This record gives sequence, structure tokens and C-alpha cells, in this order.
Amino acid sequence: MKRKSSQSEKADLLKKLHYSKQMLVLPNIWDVAGAELLEETGYQAVATASAAIARANGFQDGEIIPFEPVLEILTQIVNAVNIPVTADIESGYATDLPGLKANIRKILATGVAGINIEDSDPKTNLLLPLETQAERIKLIRNVAEKAGVRLFINARVDIFLKPNDLTWEGKLEAAIERGCAYADAGADCIYPILLKDEAAISTLVKSFPVPVNITIMKGSPELAVLQQLGVARVSFGPNFQKAMLLAMKTSLKNVKDKFSHSQLTDMLV
Amino acid sequence: MKRKSSQSEKADLLKKLHYSKQMLVLPNIWDVAGAELLEETGYQAVATASAAIARANGFQDGEIIPFEPVLEILTQIVNAVNIPVTADIESGYATDLPGLKANIRKILATGVAGINIEDSDPKTNLLLPLETQAERIKLIRNVAEKAGVRLFINARVDIFLKPNDLTWEGKLEAAIERGCAYADAGADCIYPILLKDEAAISTLVKSFPVPVNITIMKGSPELAVLQQLGVARVSFGPNFQKAMLLAMKTSLKNVKDKFSHSQLTDMLV
Repeated sequence: MKRKSSQSEKADLLKKLHYSKQMLVLPNIWDVAGAELLEETGYQAVATASAAIARANGFQDGEIIPFEPVLEILTQIVNAVNIPVTADIESGYATDLPGLKANIRKILATGVAGINIEDSDPKTNLLLPLETQAERIKLIRNVAEKAGVRLFINARVDIFLKPNDLTWEGKLEAAIERGCAYADAGADCIYPILLKDEAAISTLVKSFPVPVNITIMKGSPELAVLQQLGVARVSFGPNFQKAMLLAMKTSLKNVKDKFSHSQLTDMLV
Repeated sequence: MKRKSSQSEKADLLKKLHYSKQMLVLPNIWDVAGAELLEETGYQAVATASAAIARANGFQDGEIIPFEPVLEILTQIVNAVNIPVTADIESGYATDLPGLKANIRKILATGVAGINIEDSDPKTNLLLPLETQAERIKLIRNVAEKAGVRLFINARVDIFLKPNDLTWEGKLEAAIERGCAYADAGADCIYPILLKDEAAISTLVKSFPVPVNITIMKGSPELAVLQQLGVARVSFGPNFQKAMLLAMKTSLKNVKDKFSHSQLTDMLV
């Protein structure tokens, strides 16, 4: 295996991929085997999904799986592939700035090229104040710069995910305000999770000074449509794992109900 | 979740499943998500595959993944399901008896109901002498008994897997000799890995005083045939993971080549 690219080169490549004509497509994985498959099939980057890593290891999402095994899995994944790896680190396992600083250093030490960082608190399930999250993103940028890595920061906007009293228009306005503030604080990409309305996606793409990441879920616009709307990156979150586990369930049921292994072993080369 | 069965009860149930009219079918898994799927779909026991656990975590098979993470994964799996779990522990991560004793204690502490133990050395890739392996099985039985658990010991016979100078008839003879010696030493089940010849399977089933485990791979006799031959248990080894990863590869290629997510998201409920 070649080991040519440094962490910084991978971070720069990851950024470049967000400015390509070809939209960056990231079916998020949860283990080394999945990361290797992505590289094998010609994907340009690997993204992890925190919920999928948690599920594979027997945890619910929301920073319940301890931080150390997550760091271990990220290190394994980075070591296994040559393409950039971007890690879903939820809220960074810290709401206080010193804790976040320490954790970002640990994340950087895994060799990842980018991160997803959420603007909500998994403990309360509520949105963090805009100013708090902007402060956190500034800190992450500073910590990464001091480490000499232009870490690609994908700032999640949880307005469409977490409970709030806003109307649809209010949500859109708040998302724009947050996304712009996060870009200003040093975010490289804005990720308004769960958004699938085409008009709203178009509005956000036009409103943000940086690339936009959209979630792929059941009922999402097709990839060509999203690319047309100017979306720079799509990711599947936990949905790729969900689909794979459903396929696995079907195979398990087939073996059991038909008392036959051939449908499964016929898949083997 | 109910937590009714003790480790001993699960070990006894696992044994009982080997004496049922219905052949025990074990599509080996590698993480908690897979174990949960097995339970959900009505399987009666969970078996792990060492090669699959290794691959998911970025290692080749052959005791290269350290023992501690394997123990951690086994503990997670045992805690996640109520059905018995049988663990593929390769050669027990020890060729010396004191090392094996210590490791079996650690394995028992994970709560597993059974193990697979190989009669070859992953470091040399060669078969262990019959007497050595019989000694090892005796030790495992003693350690388990002292811990108050009737651990279900599935003794692998690697004659058909590892290099040796025997003819086909010689292999069969050696397999019978080994299997009988292992049963005598305390093994509950004999696992002549890679055997798919129906006549040979039938001969071994008739020769062993304990149940027989057969590998499911491409070209294996169908489940009904194996049941007819008197096979008590079939397991997929790494082949279930291989099939699932190939299915995942197809999905990844589809998303990429067709620039479409619908085939994947249509699978979601």
C-alpha cells in the first residue's frame, strides 16, 4: 500500500473535492472494511457516521459510545486507506471550550482530514446558541492551525433536526444566520441536516459563502438534481448502514425460512 | 431487554441445540449490529467469525488483531442479545498451556456460552500434534468446569485446511483420529473445516461420538442435505461477511455509476 499523502495534503484534497464540478458523494461507513470498499470502488473520500459506528458497537447515537474507541476506530480507518477521511465527531464530546480543545487535538492525532461538528448538545438534545457554536468552530480552526493542518470543518446546522418553536420560514432564516456565522468563524462547509426541500436547498446554497452538504434519505432529490442546485456534497448519515442491515436481514431470513444457503453463497466469487 | 439466562443456562441451551432434530444454522457475525439482527430474525444462537471481526477492524485473520479488542467485542455482543453466543477464538491466542489457561478465563469472563478452538498454530500455519491439542482441550474443559460453566467446546480439525502431505484417504483417517481424540478430551462438537464432500461428511458424522459442524461455502451441499447426513450444525465462517461486503460493494457501485441514491434509499422503511 502506498502512503504518500500527509494529513495536510489529504485535508487540502478534501477541500478541493468540495469545489469540483462533480458533487462529492459520501456513503458514510462505520468500520475499516467499509472504508476499504469505498476506496476500492473509486470513491474519493471516506466519511464516517457516528450513529452507524455506535450501532455497530452496540450503542445508541448521541455520544454514548465512549470517545476512546471512536478515536481508535478513526485511526484504524485512516491507516487503512489512502483517500481523505472525514469524521463525524458529533459535538466533539465536550460542551466546554477546554474540553473541546483537548478532544480536537486527539481527533487530529487520528490523522483525519476533516470533521463534522454539530451545533446541538447530545445531553440536552437542544440547539446550542449560535454564538456558542461560532466560538467552538473558531477554537477548532485555531487548534487545527496550530497543529499545522487545514482541517476541513463541516459545520452541521441542526435547525431542521432538533426541537424548536420556529415556523418553516423561521427555520430557514435561522439556518441561514447560523450557516453564515459558522462560515465566518472558520467552517469550510455547512450541513443543514435533514433538509430535502429543493427550494430551501437552493436558497441555502445561494446564501452561504461556502459549500453545502445535504443528507441523502428516503425521498431526497436525486443526485443529479442536487448537483444542479449547486450542492457540493451529499452524505448518507446512518442511512447507508440502515440499508445494508436491512439487506442483511433479508439474507438472514432467506437462509432461515428457505432452509437454503445458495442465495447467499451464490453471491460469493 | 430481558436478562434471564445465566452463562451456564446459555451454555446448556447451546448444547441442547446441537441435539435437536433441526440442524443449528449459524451465519457468523462480527459486530453487535449483526448479533442483534440474528436475534431479531429468530436465530437461536450467535456465532462470531474471527476472520470477519479481524476484517471489520482492519486486520488479516490469524490472531493478528490483539486479544483485548476481541474480548471487548465479545462482551458487547453477549450483552446485546439473550441467545447464547459462541466465539471463534482461533487458537486461543496461546500455544503454551499456562497462556491458554489465562486466556480461557478471560474468554469465560465475556459471558460466551461456547467457543471454537483450532488445532493449528496461526504463527506457523501448521497443524498442532494431536496430543498437544487433546491436552489443550482437556485444559479448557477443566478451566471452564472450575468456573462453573459447561462451556460448549467446538473443536476444529484443520486437516482439510492446513498444508500436509496426506492423501484424501489419509486426511479422512487423520480427521477421524483427531476428532475422536478431541471428543475424548472433552470437546462437545467436532468441526472439520472446509469439508464439503457428502460421502466424507457422512463418514465423519458416523465416526464421531459427538455432533459435527460443517462449513457453508460456495458449492457446499444444501442445508436439507446436510441435515439428512446427520450434521448437527453449520456455520458460514467468514463467508457471510464476504457476501454482505460484496452486496455493499454492488450498492456503492450503483450509487456511483448511476449517480443515483434511489436503489439504496428504496431499501429504507
